[in-house]
Amino acid sequence: INPVFNPKGNDDTGNRLIWFGETTNLMQLNDVRYSWAVSLYRQMRENFWIPEKIDITQDIVDYVNLTPEERRAFDGILSYLTFLDSVQTCNVPHLKNSVTAPEIALCMAEQISQEAMHNQSYQYVIETVIPNDRRTQLYEFWRSDIILKERCEFIAGLYQKYVDNPTPENYFVSLLADYLLESIYFYNGFIFFYNLSSRMLMSGIADVFKMINRDELSHVRLYQKLIPEAMKIFPHSREQIYEMFALAVQYECKWTSHIVGDNILGITTKSTEQYTKYLANIRLQAIGLEPLFTESVYKKSPYVHLERLSDTKKEAHTKANFFEASVTSYVMSSSIEGWDDF
Amino acid sequence: INPVFNPKGNDDTGNRLIWFGETTNLMQLNDVRYSWAVSLYRQMRENFWIPEKIDITQDIVDYVNLTPEERRAFDGILSYLTFLDSVQTCNVPHLKNSVTAPEIALCMAEQISQEAMHNQSYQYVIETVIPNDRRTQLYEFWRSDIILKERCEFIAGLYQKYVDNPTPENYFVSLLADYLLESIYFYNGFIFFYNLSSRMLMSGIADVFKMINRDELSHVRLYQKLIPEAMKIFPHSREQIYEMFALAVQYECKWTSHIVGDNILGITTKSTEQYTKYLANIRLQAIGLEPLFTESVYKKSPYVHLERLSDTKKEAHTKANFFEASVTSYVMSSSIEGWDDF
Ligand SMILES: [Ca+2]
Ligand SMILES: [Ca+2]
Repeated sequence: INPVFNPKGNDDTGNRLIWFGETTNLMQLNDVRYSWAVSLYRQMRENFWIPEKIDITQDIVDYVNLTPEERRAFDGILSYLTFLDSVQTCNVPHLKNSVTAPEIALCMAEQISQEAMHNQSYQYVIETVIPNDRRTQLYEFWRSDIILKERCEFIAGLYQKYVDNPTPENYFVSLLADYLLESIYFYNGFIFFYNLSSRMLMSGIADVFKMINRDELSHVRLYQKLIPEAMKIFPHSREQIYEMFALAVQYECKWTSHIVGDNILGITTKSTEQYTKYLANIRLQAIGLEPLFTESVYKKSPYVHLERLSDTKKEAHTKANFFEASVTSYVMSSSIEGWDDF
Repeated sequence: INPVFNPKGNDDTGNRLIWFGETTNLMQLNDVRYSWAVSLYRQMRENFWIPEKIDITQDIVDYVNLTPEERRAFDGILSYLTFLDSVQTCNVPHLKNSVTAPEIALCMAEQISQEAMHNQSYQYVIETVIPNDRRTQLYEFWRSDIILKERCEFIAGLYQKYVDNPTPENYFVSLLADYLLESIYFYNGFIFFYNLSSRMLMSGIADVFKMINRDELSHVRLYQKLIPEAMKIFPHSREQIYEMFALAVQYECKWTSHIVGDNILGITTKSTEQYTKYLANIRLQAIGLEPLFTESVYKKSPYVHLERLSDTKKEAHTKANFFEASVTSYVMSSSIEGWDDF
C-alpha cells in the first residue's frame, strides 16, 4: 500500500513504474510514462452514460411474456451480474492502492465509479421490470441457488486472499482474477440479453447492457495492458495462469448451463462451452499467451450474429466524435451511432 | 476493512449501518436506508463534465499579462490544489473500504472518480497556460516552498495515521480531515481565481474552477451527512474536533497569506482570515456544532460579491444559470432541476 504522500519520491517518467515505483503519489500528469493510459482514460470518460436515460418501459410488457425459463434466467443472471459489479466496486480500490503511476491510478479511479454505476443500472432495470415484492428475492438469488453461491464464494475468495494477506503473489492472483472477471464472466450474461433482443424481446434492457458492455471492454483493455506488465514483476507461473483460466472456464460453463442451459432459444450448453472457451483463448492471446483450447471449434464465436447486433466485435475503437451528440439524445444516440465503430 | 463478500450478511435496511453493519457487501440498492445518498449520487452523476470542453485559450494571453505576484500565486495554488486532489484520490478508497451501506459506497465511488478527474483538469489548465519547461516546476512548487511542503505533510499525515494504524479513533480523524479538506482547504484557492475573473482575467479557468467547486460542494454535502453519523459511533471528543478545526484554519491562513498575502488586488491577509474563519464556522454548524469564531466579523463572507459571480453562494442550491455561460449542455440542465430539490 502506497503512502498517501511521499515527499522523498521522484516522479520522473523513468521512475514511474506501475508498481513499486518510488513516486510521490501525487497526480503529476504532465510527464506520463504510460501514454496509452491517458488515451484509455479519455475514452472511459467519454463513454459516460446515465442508465435512467435509456427507455426500458416496453421491457415491462416483454418480461411478462417471457417463458418461465427465460424469466428464471433473467433473474439469476441479474443477481450474478450484481454480484460481479459489487465485488469490483469493493476490490478495484484494493488493487489501486499499490499502483505508483498516476496515469494508471486515473483509469482505476474511473473504473471504480463505473462499477458502482453498473450496480445502479441493475437497480434501474430491476425496479422497472420486477414487482417490488420480488426484488429482494432476485438480489438474493444466490442465497437459494447453491451453484451461484459457490461460484460467488470462489470469485470473492481469490480477491479476499490478497485483502487478508497482501503479498506480491496474492496481488498477482487478484489482478488476474480481475481480468478473468472483466473479460470472461460477463459475456454469457450479455449474450443472453442480446439473444432476447434479437427476438425483439427486452430491447431496452439490451441497450443498457450494450452500454455496460462498452464500459467493460475498456476495463478489459486496461487489464490487458496491466497483466503483461505484472508478469514481468510479480512472482507467478505460466501453469498457474493456465490453471486459473481453466477453472474460470469451468465455473462459467457450469453456471451458464445451470441458469440458461438448453432452455433458451438460440443458446445451448454446447454453444455456451464453445463461446466461453473461445473467449478464454482470445483473452490469453491478448496477454501474449498461447490459446488453451486448441481444437478449431474454439477459434471462433458461435454468436457472431449477436456480436454484430451488439456491435462490440471491434472492441475498444470508439468513434472520435462519439461524445458530440447532444443532451437528451446523448445516451440514446451514442448507444446506437457510437456503437457501430466500437 | 470489509470482506469482499460476506454471504452470512444481512442487507435489511435495519442492519444497514454506514459502518460496522453486518451486510453482505453487495450493492443491493433496492431497499436503501440512507435515501439522501441515492439523491446525492444522482446529483453527482448529473454534474458530469469534461475539462477539455471548456475553452481556456484566452487565458494563455491573460497569464502573460498577470503581475509577477499573480503568476506566483497562480502556480503555487495550482500546485497545492493538485496535492489536495491527489491525496483525495488516494485516501477516499481507504475511507470507503469500511463503509457497509452500499448507497454510501456508491457516492464514495463517484467521488473517487471526480477527485481523479480534477487532477486531469489541473493538467489541462497547466499544459494550456504554462510552457512545457516550467510545468514540472509548477507541480513541484511544494519542493522548494517550505510552507507548502509543511502544509502538505500535515494534511497527508492525518490520513497516513489511519492507513498505518487503522483504529476507529484514527478513522474518525481521517474522516474529519477529509471534511476539513473538502469544505475549507479549497476555497481560498477558488476565491483567487474568481477574483481574477471578476477583473476579466483567466475567465476560462474560472469556469473550470466553477465546475470543480460544484463537485466539491457535493462532497461537502456527503461529509456533512457522514460526520454526525460518525460522531455517534467512533471514539472522539468535542475538543478534538475544535482543535482540528482551529489547526486547519491556522494552516489555511498561513499558506494563503504566504502565497496570496496582500499582493493581489481584491484579497488581503485580513479578508483571508475573515473568510477562512467564516467558512470554519458554517462548516461546524453544518455538523451540528457551535461556531468557533464568535466575533460578528466572522459571521459573514468578505467575498459575497465573488460568490455571486461564481453562483456558489447558496452552496448546495446552485442557481439555474450557474453554468449556462459555457460548456455543452447535457448535465447542466439536469443538474439544475435536481439540485433545488436536494
Ligand atoms: Ca468492470
Ligand atoms: Ca473533493
